Amino acid sequence: MSDERTSKAGSSNASDHALAEALAKRTLELCRIPSVIGDEKRLADHVEEWARGLYPSDEIFRINHTLVLGRVPQVKNADRPVVALFGHLDTVPPHPGDEPEPRWEPGEEGGRIVGLGSSDMKSGVAVMQFLVERVERRSLPFELLLVLYEREEGPYAENGLGPLFEALPHLANVDFAVCLEPSDNAIQMGCCGALHAMLTFHGRSAHSARPWQGENAIHKAGSLLVDLQAREPVEVDLGGLRFREVMSATLAQGGRARNVIPEKFTLNLNYRFAPGKSVEEAQEDVRRFVGDRAGVEFTDLAPSGAVVADHPLFRRLLESTGAVVEGKQAWTDVGRLSSLGIPAVNFGPGAGSQAHQANEWVSVRSILESYRHFERFLFGS
Amino acid sequence: MSDERTSKAGSSNASDHALAEALAKRTLELCRIPSVIGDEKRLADHVEEWARGLYPSDEIFRINHTLVLGRVPQVKNADRPVVALFGHLDTVPPHPGDEPEPRWEPGEEGGRIVGLGSSDMKSGVAVMQFLVERVERRSLPFELLLVLYEREEGPYAENGLGPLFEALPHLANVDFAVCLEPSDNAIQMGCCGALHAMLTFHGRSAHSARPWQGENAIHKAGSLLVDLQAREPVEVDLGGLRFREVMSATLAQGGRARNVIPEKFTLNLNYRFAPGKSVEEAQEDVRRFVGDRAGVEFTDLAPSGAVVADHPLFRRLLESTGAVVEGKQAWTDVGRLSSLGIPAVNFGPGAGSQAHQANEWVSVRSILESYRHFERFLFGS
Repeated sequence: MSDERTSKAGSSNASDHALAEALAKRTLELCRIPSVIGDEKRLADHVEEWARGLYPSDEIFRINHTLVLGRVPQVKNADRPVVALFGHLDTVPPHPGDEPEPRWEPGEEGGRIVGLGSSDMKSGVAVMQFLVERVERRSLPFELLLVLYEREEGPYAENGLGPLFEALPHLANVDFAVCLEPSDNAIQMGCCGALHAMLTFHGRSAHSARPWQGENAIHKAGSLLVDLQAREPVEVDLGGLRFREVMSATLAQGGRARNVIPEKFTLNLNYRFAPGKSVEEAQEDVRRFVGDRAGVEFTDLAPSGAVVADHPLFRRLLESTGAVVEGKQAWTDVGRLSSLGIPAVNFGPGAGSQAHQANEWVSVRSILESYRHFERFLFGS
Repeated sequence: MSDERTSKAGSSNASDHALAEALAKRTLELCRIPSVIGDEKRLADHVEEWARGLYPSDEIFRINHTLVLGRVPQVKNADRPVVALFGHLDTVPPHPGDEPEPRWEPGEEGGRIVGLGSSDMKSGVAVMQFLVERVERRSLPFELLLVLYEREEGPYAENGLGPLFEALPHLANVDFAVCLEPSDNAIQMGCCGALHAMLTFHGRSAHSARPWQGENAIHKAGSLLVDLQAREPVEVDLGGLRFREVMSATLAQGGRARNVIPEKFTLNLNYRFAPGKSVEEAQEDVRRFVGDRAGVEFTDLAPSGAVVADHPLFRRLLESTGAVVEGKQAWTDVGRLSSLGIPAVNFGPGAGSQAHQANEWVSVRSILESYRHFERFLFGS
């Protein structure tokens, strides 16, 4: 990769090797600041302090532990579209098997960074930081915004983007968004919506020596579980991208003593539905599937994200990077952005297979590759 | 009930009214000494102190919080058979809705005693105490033993009778046993055996957006639950008494996060099987029912109790009391005694419907009736 383009003075000739090393160090630095969901203050403070060295204070907006860096568009401006890069600051909780300290594990092409959040998605945040450090933003053909936010790894309703878009409604004027979620540097289009429903089977307790005096709530779940077991993924093809609608019982709990016929049995049902299907339609799918076999209470509703294959900024991203294009099966905030009318894709350096795993890692090579992709996107190929 | 028979000096003319009052007071006194399973020491100490006033010290045997009062037979002696009355000292844990203090609630025929363990089975223990207080044991046509024991309300393997029969193997020479479990003063014959099995369904975890990469352990339970739901009680007729073999899932637990395909789902299966069926045959029933659908681990095995309709001491009990005879559906220690070769029945003053209920009670009338039944049994009608 010798086709370096205009960037800040002194950095254009940096070798890939030195740049990779610097990106690796930055990722490691971010991993060393723990930011388990709900505990993002320290990392948000760190990022805010970093931003104060690069942005005028009126281009730094903070709400709770969520930051927006750059000029938030008050209106749509076709001449100077706004591109926003989204990165969440939080991680899932550590795993029992995790090594206590993040570390740089040497190896070919820079080895890898091992640490909670390395793939999901502190390497993406490091790329975002490097872009604004090394790029003259004013020289770009569009306005570049960074959104660094809290509470992505939890329920939809508690996600940091909720309060942010309430506080900054103009943010919906963004023309194109990229979430640097771990995608192995593939452009992942759209995303399946995800809802959770608590299904409750009701019975009537009795001594288990005389079950006919009661009604067994656990037994009543049999036919629904048989139907779930038999249900094949529903394949949905959108512009050549395949999404799969799937329904799974993920948690089960019932009974209160081993000698008592259970009066209550609950299942958490998780439904993933394809882009193009609304949350309301997805709820209807669940209600129709369950029928009168159980009570249904929806506990989390995350919309699907539209596939934006025709958007000019997506075309630019695709043409400048030549990246592989895939459908995004798992939910990301592309769904939320899509529901706010913002075309968005997932495109980040982390490894999808490493997200939420013990001893999570990211390869240094893929962080460099991501940086180069965004550099080409910003300046055009 | 004016047909009083020989009993200790001064008590033969006691009116029913005074006797009922005394039995009620004794039951209340026993209820006021908490003895939740695992915490029987105080009540066992109290009963032992009471026994020291009535028995020579070589007729008081104690192991842990279990007491045997009377002469334990070293051999079978057809001329002087041994009758043992069994009463457990423990209760189930209190219920959230329980009144804090046991009390005597006035009403017709002495009203009732309200308190944890009143029916199951401190009223039975009170009757046992009164019998030895008021009866000249040497004048009886048989040896009378009392067994007052701990840990009946828990798993079979932890029951106080286990260590007792290990320490006193001669106790198996007892000719006939009566458990004063709550039976509403009906003679309840035999008892169903009860086993518990932990069924484990195994799967493979995966992200719930991509369930096809894993295997859902909860879904796999569907067909077994459908079969349990469809399974009718199997009626078994033994000497005109009806028992019902029933199988129920009583506890269910599965999954570890709402976004993860569950790798494990467990069900507690409780199987009640009729007298005449061995524990091994019952285990085979469960294995055949489950097949290869789940792993089976037996966690509790309580044998059934034989129906002893032809035993001469049962005939004496029946003829002297004229009590109603029923089959015992729920498990009691009649099953254990039966497996040790001791013919046994359930016959006690408590109300079956009150056992293990919040604000449990027993009617004073039924305590008096129980006392009179045993008096007639001991002296013949």
